Amino acid sequence: MVAAVIDAKVKVAVTAAGNPALYTSRFKDAGIKVIHLVAAVRHAQSAEKRGVDAVIAEGYEAGGHNGLDELTTLTLVPQVVDAVAIPVVAAGGIADVRGIVAALALGADGVQIGTRFIATRECAAHQNFKEAIVKASDTDTVITGRKLGPTRILKNEIATKILEMEASGASIEELVAFIGSSRSRTGQFEGDLANGQAYCGSIAGMIKEIKSVSEIFQSITDNYDSVLARLK
Amino acid sequence: MVAAVIDAKVKVAVTAAGNPALYTSRFKDAGIKVIHLVAAVRHAQSAEKRGVDAVIAEGYEAGGHNGLDELTTLTLVPQVVDAVAIPVVAAGGIADVRGIVAALALGADGVQIGTRFIATRECAAHQNFKEAIVKASDTDTVITGRKLGPTRILKNEIATKILEMEASGASIEELVAFIGSSRSRTGQFEGDLANGQAYCGSIAGMIKEIKSVSEIFQSITDNYDSVLARLK
Repeated sequence: MVAAVIDAKVKVAVTAAGNPALYTSRFKDAGIKVIHLVAAVRHAQSAEKRGVDAVIAEGYEAGGHNGLDELTTLTLVPQVVDAVAIPVVAAGGIADVRGIVAALALGADGVQIGTRFIATRECAAHQNFKEAIVKASDTDTVITGRKLGPTRILKNEIATKILEMEASGASIEELVAFIGSSRSRTGQFEGDLANGQAYCGSIAGMIKEIKSVSEIFQSITDNYDSVLARLK
Repeated sequence: MVAAVIDAKVKVAVTAAGNPALYTSRFKDAGIKVIHLVAAVRHAQSAEKRGVDAVIAEGYEAGGHNGLDELTTLTLVPQVVDAVAIPVVAAGGIADVRGIVAALALGADGVQIGTRFIATRECAAHQNFKEAIVKASDTDTVITGRKLGPTRILKNEIATKILEMEASGASIEELVAFIGSSRSRTGQFEGDLANGQAYCGSIAGMIKEIKSVSEIFQSITDNYDSVLARLK
């Protein structure tokens, strides 16, 4: 995959969930910018030392795979900003202009927005997944897999079953056998939310309708100044 | 205690960790303002219905007792702001002016700052506790008691022991017997951090020195405009 990315002259590679020493220099040697995702200050410092161009500091509220240290975006971002000299992108829990201004106030140079863009007309996710995000309340996501690798997903029967298995002391092997490798495809792309998982940020409760990408950007630029105005 | 508060003509009562129906009308009838602490949108709506004057929306990063739904300050505050008409105070993960501006950008009308004010010369906490906050890194707090009532504390031997008991399936009775009722006094006020617990927010990693309360306020007012300047 790394070779294919280099071959295709991709301009920016985002790496995550692993050691930045593995691929950074290969990408950099090929003239590709590297942004590494981090969930704690020590990861950010390590990534900077390995020569990445920027880090994404992703908090506990983010959907999908999550750091072991459970630092939230509000606590993680300013500490990463203070610890590294490279640009910091804030991620996790951001779905509208208020979250963007908050992230910039914390010192972030940019933001990464996930769940809000799943519930767009353009996204390849299944319609059922998009509608489940719109229906979700503030408390409708949960962290599963604390033993395997924490993953924030929409609450559904599968999430409940995984949590029950964890509470009753299921082994890692039993959990892996139950979850398998295709449940996120089943949920997110095939739309079977009874048998599949759907990675989802805890900000889903704030997302009330499926929009187009351009509507989301328009709303951000239209409302930025009014958020700033209330800060004066 | 409620009678004593009314008798002493306290002006504002902050209630938490329970049903706002219990005491709100007694306080209100005595002319006391009531602020109720909430950790999810439904709690905020319920508190508003019971007539409280404001809510504190406290996220997962906060020290001490914590909500069951694990909503972070970044995700909780704007959703509470959208759900109620009364003022909203943001709490959890705020220790400097950047966090204050972020909370206000999310729509909060004010902030509650805890851990930062423990590490002040004026605070009644034991010097050992204050120094432990200053020494803490970004990853030095942890949620214990997920079964009993989640509580964020500084990582120490007691925290490790509680987590081990939880992981090995200890009963609630066993956990209560081990934790007892005085470990937070032992840690926080007697300064015995080997045998006591210390409630602590996950923003402790950003707190680098013990200050006076006035220095903290001065730093906030001195730096507010420079945070706003970078948002333009």
